[in-house]
Amino acid sequence: MSRLVLVRHGQSEWNLQNRFTGWVDVNLTSEGEAQAKKAGALMKAAGFAPKRAFVSMLTRAIRTLNLALADMGMSWIPVDKSWRLNERHYGALTGLDKAETKAKHGEEQVKVWRRSFDTPPPALDRDDERHPRFDPRYAGLADSDLPATESLATTLERVQPYWESEIAPHLKAGDDLLIAAHGNSLRAIVKLLFNVSPDTIVEVEIPTGNPLMIELDADLKPVSARYLDADRAQPLPALP
Amino acid sequence: MSRLVLVRHGQSEWNLQNRFTGWVDVNLTSEGEAQAKKAGALMKAAGFAPKRAFVSMLTRAIRTLNLALADMGMSWIPVDKSWRLNERHYGALTGLDKAETKAKHGEEQVKVWRRSFDTPPPALDRDDERHPRFDPRYAGLADSDLPATESLATTLERVQPYWESEIAPHLKAGDDLLIAAHGNSLRAIVKLLFNVSPDTIVEVEIPTGNPLMIELDADLKPVSARYLDADRAQPLPALP
Repeated sequence: MSRLVLVRHGQSEWNLQNRFTGWVDVNLTSEGEAQAKKAGALMKAAGFAPKRAFVSMLTRAIRTLNLALADMGMSWIPVDKSWRLNERHYGALTGLDKAETKAKHGEEQVKVWRRSFDTPPPALDRDDERHPRFDPRYAGLADSDLPATESLATTLERVQPYWESEIAPHLKAGDDLLIAAHGNSLRAIVKLLFNVSPDTIVEVEIPTGNPLMIELDADLKPVSARYLDADRAQPLPALP
Repeated sequence: MSRLVLVRHGQSEWNLQNRFTGWVDVNLTSEGEAQAKKAGALMKAAGFAPKRAFVSMLTRAIRTLNLALADMGMSWIPVDKSWRLNERHYGALTGLDKAETKAKHGEEQVKVWRRSFDTPPPALDRDDERHPRFDPRYAGLADSDLPATESLATTLERVQPYWESEIAPHLKAGDDLLIAAHGNSLRAIVKLLFNVSPDTIVEVEIPTGNPLMIELDADLKPVSARYLDADRAQPLPALP
């Protein structure tokens, strides 16, 4: 039996500005920082002491993790960072205002891009300065790994190998783990664990900065799941 | 050719209280946090973009690193944490007030404990609650690795294997690296790199939060060394 806690980063500057963020490396707001510290306090109060943490390559998730771990007095645990836990890449919508995008492409189209399981937004041009190949943090990656756009389905495809090779073995060994990441990379993990349909997973909303604690049996089947801040909980899929 | 930057953590609560700290996990003061951010700004201004960072298991060094990396916009680089970069363990002096210790044992004796190369303070009793075996962060270590006291000489003995196996290979591959650690673990590294005598190394003072940038040739011989905050520099050993 092991425990896994998923934490979605606190409020970011672009959450506030209502822009499509994806792989853009925006900071937390001071409200987001407060959410991260509170997430740490909730984990500590729940007696959660992870052996190891995993985080994306994006500052808003890393800062959320660092603030939470500091609050828990556990800054010293090993932390693995991977682009495979990054937010879904929003393709050519990256950086655009959500309201303007609705005005231009229609509300229905934007809803499809935001909420369908497998329809990605239009891809970024390879020479677009927003393309991940221009970001030094991805310099070591194969060109074929770098997305120019992603759906939740393709996000899951790149989360899954990391889950299986880097995360799951620790859980199977009985270690408690913490993952700090993003709305869609965490949805991908919830889909893997709860084995839910594409139609169900796109409706799952993970609140920012509210630790989702999942108890797993030896086969990594969830036996319980709850948000540590019950007042800010959202519905979860049924246990499998 | 590669560049290595050594950063001693910013001012800690016990620096301020004038107590022997060693492996006790005290926090930075707000002055210490400001020093850490300034260290990041100095490294950024110097165009320093490390591929990887190394840090001790102690919060004051980890927080210094996190604050500096955030300021550099480089929170995403891989960070390896190791007890081998911890401050020298102060044995039975751990937690004692420095002035009271002088009054009790005499100024000369305290000077020997603080400044001799190879005379450690009295060891902690194995059942003393300050012994590292009671700290969960060292739970995975062999009992024989856990010090009950250390001199600078024995600190160097446990830094050196980590330097050789984990740090040096990256420098030999040409990667720029950042190490955030403590007065004595950084002295150990300076001794290894500059090949100085025991009498010389005990006189080397590394200021808090002032990045020491060392350029190394392919054999890891220093070809230049300077503090990025020239106004707070301290004398360095001659280049070897």
